[in-house]
Amino acid sequence: MSLSAQQTRTEKDLLGEKQIASNAYYGVQTARALENFQISGMTTAFYPDYVKAFAIVKLAAARANADVGRLSKEKLSAIEKACEAVMAGKYHDQFLVDLYQGGAGTSANMNANEVLANIALELSGKKKGDYHHIEPHDDLNMGQSTNDTYPTAIKIALLLHNDKLVKEATALSAAFHKKGDEFKNLLKMGRTEGQDAVPMTLGQEFHAFGNQLDAEITAMKKSESFLCEQNMGATAIGTGITASPGYAEKCADHLAKITGKPIIMSKDLIAATSSQQGFVIYSSALKSFAIALSKISSDLIFLASGPRTGIFEINLPALQPGSSIMPGKVNPVMPELMNEVCFKVIGNDLTVTLAAHSGLLQLNAFEPVEAIAIMESQGLLYKSLPLFRKNCIEGITANEKILTKYIEQSVGIVTALNPVLGYEKTTELAKEALQSGKGILQLIREKKLLTEDQIKKLLDPATLTGQK
Amino acid sequence: MSLSAQQTRTEKDLLGEKQIASNAYYGVQTARALENFQISGMTTAFYPDYVKAFAIVKLAAARANADVGRLSKEKLSAIEKACEAVMAGKYHDQFLVDLYQGGAGTSANMNANEVLANIALELSGKKKGDYHHIEPHDDLNMGQSTNDTYPTAIKIALLLHNDKLVKEATALSAAFHKKGDEFKNLLKMGRTEGQDAVPMTLGQEFHAFGNQLDAEITAMKKSESFLCEQNMGATAIGTGITASPGYAEKCADHLAKITGKPIIMSKDLIAATSSQQGFVIYSSALKSFAIALSKISSDLIFLASGPRTGIFEINLPALQPGSSIMPGKVNPVMPELMNEVCFKVIGNDLTVTLAAHSGLLQLNAFEPVEAIAIMESQGLLYKSLPLFRKNCIEGITANEKILTKYIEQSVGIVTALNPVLGYEKTTELAKEALQSGKGILQLIREKKLLTEDQIKKLLDPATLTGQK
Amino acid sequence: MSLSAQQTRTEKDLLGEKQIASNAYYGVQTARALENFQISGMTTAFYPDYVKAFAIVKLAAARANADVGRLSKEKLSAIEKACEAVMAGKYHDQFLVDLYQGGAGTSANMNANEVLANIALELSGKKKGDYHHIEPHDDLNMGQSTNDTYPTAIKIALLLHNDKLVKEATALSAAFHKKGDEFKNLLKMGRTEGQDAVPMTLGQEFHAFGNQLDAEITAMKKSESFLCEQNMGATAIGTGITASPGYAEKCADHLAKITGKPIIMSKDLIAATSSQQGFVIYSSALKSFAIALSKISSDLIFLASGPRTGIFEINLPALQPGSSIMPGKVNPVMPELMNEVCFKVIGNDLTVTLAAHSGLLQLNAFEPVEAIAIMESQGLLYKSLPLFRKNCIEGITANEKILTKYIEQSVGIVTALNPVLGYEKTTELAKEALQSGKGILQLIREKKLLTEDQIKKLLDPATLTGQK
Amino acid sequence: MSLSAQQTRTEKDLLGEKQIASNAYYGVQTARALENFQISGMTTAFYPDYVKAFAIVKLAAARANADVGRLSKEKLSAIEKACEAVMAGKYHDQFLVDLYQGGAGTSANMNANEVLANIALELSGKKKGDYHHIEPHDDLNMGQSTNDTYPTAIKIALLLHNDKLVKEATALSAAFHKKGDEFKNLLKMGRTEGQDAVPMTLGQEFHAFGNQLDAEITAMKKSESFLCEQNMGATAIGTGITASPGYAEKCADHLAKITGKPIIMSKDLIAATSSQQGFVIYSSALKSFAIALSKISSDLIFLASGPRTGIFEINLPALQPGSSIMPGKVNPVMPELMNEVCFKVIGNDLTVTLAAHSGLLQLNAFEPVEAIAIMESQGLLYKSLPLFRKNCIEGITANEKILTKYIEQSVGIVTALNPVLGYEKTTELAKEALQSGKGILQLIREKKLLTEDQIKKLLDPATLTGQK
Repeated sequence: MSLSAQQTRTEKDLLGEKQIASNAYYGVQTARALENFQISGMTTAFYPDYVKAFAIVKLAAARANADVGRLSKEKLSAIEKACEAVMAGKYHDQFLVDLYQGGAGTSANMNANEVLANIALELSGKKKGDYHHIEPHDDLNMGQSTNDTYPTAIKIALLLHNDKLVKEATALSAAFHKKGDEFKNLLKMGRTEGQDAVPMTLGQEFHAFGNQLDAEITAMKKSESFLCEQNMGATAIGTGITASPGYAEKCADHLAKITGKPIIMSKDLIAATSSQQGFVIYSSALKSFAIALSKISSDLIFLASGPRTGIFEINLPALQPGSSIMPGKVNPVMPELMNEVCFKVIGNDLTVTLAAHSGLLQLNAFEPVEAIAIMESQGLLYKSLPLFRKNCIEGITANEKILTKYIEQSVGIVTALNPVLGYEKTTELAKEALQSGKGILQLIREKKLLTEDQIKKLLDPATLTGQK
Repeated sequence: MSLSAQQTRTEKDLLGEKQIASNAYYGVQTARALENFQISGMTTAFYPDYVKAFAIVKLAAARANADVGRLSKEKLSAIEKACEAVMAGKYHDQFLVDLYQGGAGTSANMNANEVLANIALELSGKKKGDYHHIEPHDDLNMGQSTNDTYPTAIKIALLLHNDKLVKEATALSAAFHKKGDEFKNLLKMGRTEGQDAVPMTLGQEFHAFGNQLDAEITAMKKSESFLCEQNMGATAIGTGITASPGYAEKCADHLAKITGKPIIMSKDLIAATSSQQGFVIYSSALKSFAIALSKISSDLIFLASGPRTGIFEINLPALQPGSSIMPGKVNPVMPELMNEVCFKVIGNDLTVTLAAHSGLLQLNAFEPVEAIAIMESQGLLYKSLPLFRKNCIEGITANEKILTKYIEQSVGIVTALNPVLGYEKTTELAKEALQSGKGILQLIREKKLLTEDQIKKLLDPATLTGQK
Repeated sequence: MSLSAQQTRTEKDLLGEKQIASNAYYGVQTARALENFQISGMTTAFYPDYVKAFAIVKLAAARANADVGRLSKEKLSAIEKACEAVMAGKYHDQFLVDLYQGGAGTSANMNANEVLANIALELSGKKKGDYHHIEPHDDLNMGQSTNDTYPTAIKIALLLHNDKLVKEATALSAAFHKKGDEFKNLLKMGRTEGQDAVPMTLGQEFHAFGNQLDAEITAMKKSESFLCEQNMGATAIGTGITASPGYAEKCADHLAKITGKPIIMSKDLIAATSSQQGFVIYSSALKSFAIALSKISSDLIFLASGPRTGIFEINLPALQPGSSIMPGKVNPVMPELMNEVCFKVIGNDLTVTLAAHSGLLQLNAFEPVEAIAIMESQGLLYKSLPLFRKNCIEGITANEKILTKYIEQSVGIVTALNPVLGYEKTTELAKEALQSGKGILQLIREKKLLTEDQIKKLLDPATLTGQK
Repeated sequence: MSLSAQQTRTEKDLLGEKQIASNAYYGVQTARALENFQISGMTTAFYPDYVKAFAIVKLAAARANADVGRLSKEKLSAIEKACEAVMAGKYHDQFLVDLYQGGAGTSANMNANEVLANIALELSGKKKGDYHHIEPHDDLNMGQSTNDTYPTAIKIALLLHNDKLVKEATALSAAFHKKGDEFKNLLKMGRTEGQDAVPMTLGQEFHAFGNQLDAEITAMKKSESFLCEQNMGATAIGTGITASPGYAEKCADHLAKITGKPIIMSKDLIAATSSQQGFVIYSSALKSFAIALSKISSDLIFLASGPRTGIFEINLPALQPGSSIMPGKVNPVMPELMNEVCFKVIGNDLTVTLAAHSGLLQLNAFEPVEAIAIMESQGLLYKSLPLFRKNCIEGITANEKILTKYIEQSVGIVTALNPVLGYEKTTELAKEALQSGKGILQLIREKKLLTEDQIKKLLDPATLTGQK
């Protein structure tokens, strides 16, 4: 026996025979995909949760097939071991088809079928490639199609990633709220349209940042329901051809049990096979989060501008020398980074939009790029949020003197006098203050417009900022 | 008394005096806006529900101010009459500031304040401009700011429009479902990636269209909750300066009562003042609807392609000669129109995204263009959907002979044999059928792969299409 | 003769007969379009240049048909009169099909054919509807198809609009440059990433605004070349079916002559019929302009922020009271308006992208929405730019004291010492200045790091700002 | 001497001291960036041309500094060796800061400065870190700032990538044209709006694909001019602070010489520092290319649909079994892949738009994400285009029988009779043909509408398809 024959095994498919490296767990279809698609350098394994999601889907399907009496206990046991090993993080290097792929995900699905079949074979004491015991199509893909397993695997990966994202977003929000508490007594001027408006506290400002993030977290969680409506049982186009009666419902139950998420079977599997709504709405939630985060980041850049020619109400921690030319300069690198991430997330949402509207009849062949776009967004976010929190938010300090200076020289407190003096009179006061450079209080006293009691009551900080 | 004095009245503001036409219900600030912004030719009155929304907001605010004892019963009564007249469709021609405006909506809000004040004056037997009885700022804007009334008015207008949109979308979906029932026995080939897949019925295809729309309708309704969180009571920046205690909650209650929508006060009015989440998420829901609608429209164009060189499974009603050069040509004008509308809706969602992320600190000054974009999308949709339904969907007919011909000549039914013969064997069968031109059934019988009983059971239409 | 017969005439097409109002210049196909499409309320006539463009196209085509001996001199003369009347602004109210339309523009083209035929008839002493003299299809659409005339008319309308836009953009740029000259001696601190950077003049800043706009104007003009490649002669799919030999070249020549633009025939009319490149690239140029304009507008908002708690280096003219609640507040309404317009323009570019990629085979049926999106963007821009210029840019004034205060207290001038002292040493100086509150100059003198001569030379304003 | 002291060296910056691995060519600032930004896992080195671009920039700057007498010949020589080594592909693993970074690219620039300084030191026989010989700031960054070198390096990388992209796009276009020649005699029906239109050849269709790509290639090349306007000499904000007189012009000249591209100095370096126009317009050109490519890919999917229930005019090569469930199915995986890539490219263009409009005053801190987005788009395209060409376009074959069948049964040729019979008469003929199922020719002969000679002339394929 020649050496090369020892090192490869022969597999075949519709297009003919092919040599596969003996130590490879993947098979002939994965091998073809590796030849056809070498685009981005990023494979299924780039996202461990994505590999895990495939194992979860195949595990649920195998159990459901066993439940309805189609898969033998022996095979189920072998497949369960294989799936659990992958869920535990093993064999990930075998999931190596490029994330970019034509064929609506067939390569990724077949990669999973082949690898899991060979792991199952090996763990059962058989040889890799010995497919008459456990076969990638007939056993691992039993009652399934790429058209139901692939979107299901993506949705589960997105749910797993969303857990990470929500966790980091929640920690970020908590950091803002903590600063909100810390700054709760620091009076400052609020601004609208860049112009001096009326007083608030720096604490209110930071709590409002936190509350905006909280609202986005809520929306991201809510949008999970659109990912929990699953396709399993649909097979090729949603009619369930080749799937056994009762399998679809069982499969959804197993998915729910394994993931702990309220996964249900779609009520119209044909609609579900072509619909991209889950991806679109979840991606929109990411976009909405990115919009809020970008806005907050830009606000921090604005508030920290200076030190001598800007607003400079707050200090962001100095992480690195800010400039290759300007000595002593420290830049708001973390909010800038967040903006960059947010702009990519929003661009990715457009990619999802384009892919989703381009479906044709019973299937959308562009699901791979939707997965790529959304998972990239999730990954960028859950990796950058903790950096933003630790390296920036948690270290923010207030420049109290500046806050006080602004509040003292502003005329915006005149607004508080509207209910007593009327808009026309206060407008005249404001005009006079701006032109004369005098303070509002000074003018009120000069003109005896209010008693000292009224002044005290109206201009009490707690009243002014709505906290009383 | 000179003629010109008879024809105008004098009003003044921070910038000075200005002559206003005597018969105008608007006042000096509206007049300034008319000079500053003549951009799009579309005014508040372009959307009657938007005018109505302003009246609703001012009515709720007046009632809440009366509830907390700040507005006299007499004034309330006058303002109520004015608001109700506008809600009934009167005086709309006085709401004439351009939808495009700087100032974060101040012009639109002041237009409403001025017009309603003058209507109230007139209906109380006073003269227009007699503001010491009822004053645009002090009475109509009592405890309010553009920064809370303007976004609230937009949100209410969006809710009113959404009712119209949901109604039309639901009627469209019903038309698809009706066709689904009509076509329920017509067997056809499903297609994935443009390639022959497996059998289904034309009825299933149309029900799936309907179900996709239903899912989008559900999402649009769900997203209303983000519009129902309201800003009233926030005034300038969310601290509630100038608003009376208890007013905010009352105001939300009145809004809920008047509109019949579950409107609540935002729990953090400062966050609410800068947050654009409601607009972003509602606009995303419109985008998601547009994606589904665009995809369905393109499917109809595909299915109706022909008559001699296309798919031609269905006929769309002929509405107009299709071509200025090709005699006899009839084009899918309605699905094309729907695609155009959808592309505009998706573009508008990007406008909302850009505006929303560009806010600065306590306010987003770009709310006007968010309102413009979303209301344009809503209007295009609720006006075009009934045309699409009546002029296209309801008149669709099936070309049964073609459906049958396709099903007979396809090899896709081989998929149904997977569970019995295994994927490798069926693949060979498919290959042989494609190469020889023979039918699958013929080959099965020649090779005696299945009994006639098995054939009958496996290839029963109801089984094939998952309906049994 | 009955009254109703007097008031209508009978016309017919593929779908049957239809009564048309006697005084209408349009005919049966326009009438059908009016029934099918009532979507946006905006018709061809909303853009007078668009109506004019149709007349130009039909005039060029008639002349080219006469050149090649296919159209009689008599008919040409009648058609010329009709086209010239429309080009002069008459009969525009007859171009009333909605801008939104299925059928790839057939309705708009037939509207033009019908109206021009009837004007030609009437101006020749015939009766409207007397089509055996001059016929909408055979004469006005001779050797043409919607598929070549419609995109050509759009491209010509865009070129006409671009002239307006370039004119207004150039005037705006000139206003910035004028301010640049006015402010050329005002030293100020430049800022990068919101942080104090190094000195410049306010004049340089405004010239840079002008130069950025100039670069965008250049790009918009350059992109015209993609609109000048025309489709005439292509007819239905680019093969030129029904067009006479030589006609296409002549038609392009006439278009060039009439418009004064370097219009040429596309070298592959089949490619040209399906390609949307001209629209895509021109729309991208608008987007690029919008990006620059939005950025400049936001810069103005930043520089004018204040008056007491912001940057406040410049004053924007006060156009209207800024707030319905905060007396004395004046907002940057014009830059805000410009941002709104820019966000709509960028959204419209996405609409063009979606429509352009959705073409099918020999034609793109979604050209109407591309026209809608681009013309809306052009209109918003050429209407708002002069307002921005007159009501904002031309009235900007500088707060010289503030500019000087910033330059005096900044440490950024330390950068100028890098070449003499080295980066490490200057970094230490900067650090000490920031921590001690001392000025850079003071430290240099204390430490005797430079001679007075060196100081004078290095810190000369002209040197610092690169003007020497 | 302890082991650990042997293995590291000490470096310091504004923030303090830091230990650097002895074998590292990067220094303290790179080390800080590695701590701050671990986001995407993709570093400068992910794109070798990007690393090369930094070396080119630093080489040109060093030569220009030597030209103006500021950099010694000895130092120049050492820096030249270092830059040339990197340009030749060495030391790339030292360029390892994440592509995502705050600080407007300072980390990437300092990474280049540090690595090149240490290479230069080592190649001159000095030890790494021995910065009093050659210093990262003072020598490698001499007369430079991140704010000019970083955008310049990006632009040069984009130009280098564009060469690759243009090459692959040209090869793809050539493949379409070759098929155009091969198919030049195959008559087929053209389609508009999915409906049968008029005849053409399959060769014309493929040449039109090629010509559309050619037009996009032209546009991509033209847009290079916006990347050739360079920032060098601007330093921090465009005033050229720290740069020597004459340096800027020399630097542009050296860049032009090294790259062979017509690189020039921007005429307003202040405008150039904040302007993102080059990125925006080049990205728009990529978007335009993606739109055309997406449309062509979808056309191929449409034309290859079938085999039994679709259009099936052409065959795409079978690359892999098409389905995990449907035996024998072969999918259009390559055009699908191209669409996915195109959707990502278009999404990336939005990212560029968002980043570009978000600049603040003298700088845009979001250039890193613009670089990320555009380089990702370029890379995806130049990697996937050759696969598309080799694995799909070059192997396309025509189904001649189907083409002929369609042409024979279509009524679309009736259009050719318009000039002879008039639109009204041909419309009636078309209607009768469609209703009776008869052919157009048959009807013409039955009704003796044309002589055989006329028929022969009018319906000659070359005439019909505009080739005569």
